[in-house]
Amino acid sequence: MTVDGGVSRPARPAARPVGRVDPDRIPQATVARLAVYLRVLTEMLAQGVRTVSSDVLAAAAGVNAAKLRKDLSHIGSSGVRGVGYDVSRLTEQVESVLGLTRSHAVALVGVGNLGHALAGYGGFAQRGFGVAALFDVDPALVGTTIGGVEVLDVAEIPRVCASKGVTIGVIATPAGAAQQVCDALVGAGVPSILNFAPAVLSVPTGVEVRKVDLAVEMQILAFHVSRHDGRAAADGREATGKVFG
Amino acid sequence: MTVDGGVSRPARPAARPVGRVDPDRIPQATVARLAVYLRVLTEMLAQGVRTVSSDVLAAAAGVNAAKLRKDLSHIGSSGVRGVGYDVSRLTEQVESVLGLTRSHAVALVGVGNLGHALAGYGGFAQRGFGVAALFDVDPALVGTTIGGVEVLDVAEIPRVCASKGVTIGVIATPAGAAQQVCDALVGAGVPSILNFAPAVLSVPTGVEVRKVDLAVEMQILAFHVSRHDGRAAADGREATGKVFG
Repeated sequence: MTVDGGVSRPARPAARPVGRVDPDRIPQATVARLAVYLRVLTEMLAQGVRTVSSDVLAAAAGVNAAKLRKDLSHIGSSGVRGVGYDVSRLTEQVESVLGLTRSHAVALVGVGNLGHALAGYGGFAQRGFGVAALFDVDPALVGTTIGGVEVLDVAEIPRVCASKGVTIGVIATPAGAAQQVCDALVGAGVPSILNFAPAVLSVPTGVEVRKVDLAVEMQILAFHVSRHDGRAAADGREATGKVFG
Repeated sequence: MTVDGGVSRPARPAARPVGRVDPDRIPQATVARLAVYLRVLTEMLAQGVRTVSSDVLAAAAGVNAAKLRKDLSHIGSSGVRGVGYDVSRLTEQVESVLGLTRSHAVALVGVGNLGHALAGYGGFAQRGFGVAALFDVDPALVGTTIGGVEVLDVAEIPRVCASKGVTIGVIATPAGAAQQVCDALVGAGVPSILNFAPAVLSVPTGVEVRKVDLAVEMQILAFHVSRHDGRAAADGREATGKVFG
């Protein structure tokens, strides 16, 4: 078994104690997959499934079973041979590692087009991420209410985020405003930011930024459309025996 | 230089001809970054920047310069030493590789909460991804109009997607409906799908699915909040000289 830098280490005992997980040692990609496993586990729990094999859980999550087992070993969880994982216990473990056993208060900045949509999107609150505060610069929007939350002026970010204990900031402003808003959130002690603005944000060490860029997603898909068309054209040429169409 | 499987190959000549790019040889991660470079390049073009060094372009895109140069070499583009890249020419090359020189028609399925928001989100059309068709199962929504586009019944997916030449399908349905909708889109010849539903989709080879799961993004951020709090607590203990708080 090798770790970063290729240094060999003796194999660890198979059964590691739960509750002694060091979050700093969990790779980022594993964290992302844990969130996906949690979604599958929650669904299984709701359907009354009590135990699940790594193969079944992996297939439902869209990863291979070896990767799943390795991911779960990072959180100190190993299945019982021939039985699998206890769905309820594993769900609790993943929730605990992901920090979902505490509540989070979300501040959303920028309630234009996309931001308004996100503010009204029920999915956040359903999963324990209640929108505690909304902000915008537009005087026409400040003072309006979305989903029962009043839109405040961005100048209020420091005071309101501190008083409401905001832990996650969502930025849905135009690109040009994103860094300033980000600085305000970070200054107010917000450690995690979800950025929908098409801009690269600079943050101090210890602050985490996740980015969702819908235009980039669409462009990646456009690339695959081209590639798909290119292949179809190539197949067509092969089928008709022509090398140059 | 090694490729998949660790087989050594002779180094390629440094200058590769443009216009002979094989899309199948461009790594997925490079495609994603090309979309980001394009965003930066477009901004630079608008500001009248004519040439840009790899260092500056890389910094603006949030990647390191070596990675950027490698990415651009995949599309047959190399800067001129001491001058850098021609912004206008590089923009065209990236657009061409990404398939953005042709138009795309988008079908959006599921115009509930998030889907309605996405349908009204101007960002797609601005970037050349016009929403050509909207679908839902809810009789209360079918027949309504969002952004000038009428919501049709999902049963119309095959006919409408084929007749409008839809190349990108966006799924914003509940998880339970996503696979069936995906099958309908794929059956209608849609080669690229952006999936907002919290479900893993099965598609045949040649169909590309990109996933945006906002709940997963929030859970990853929650993990970082916990880790941040844990570190802050550890720092506090160190500062006061106490080992157990």
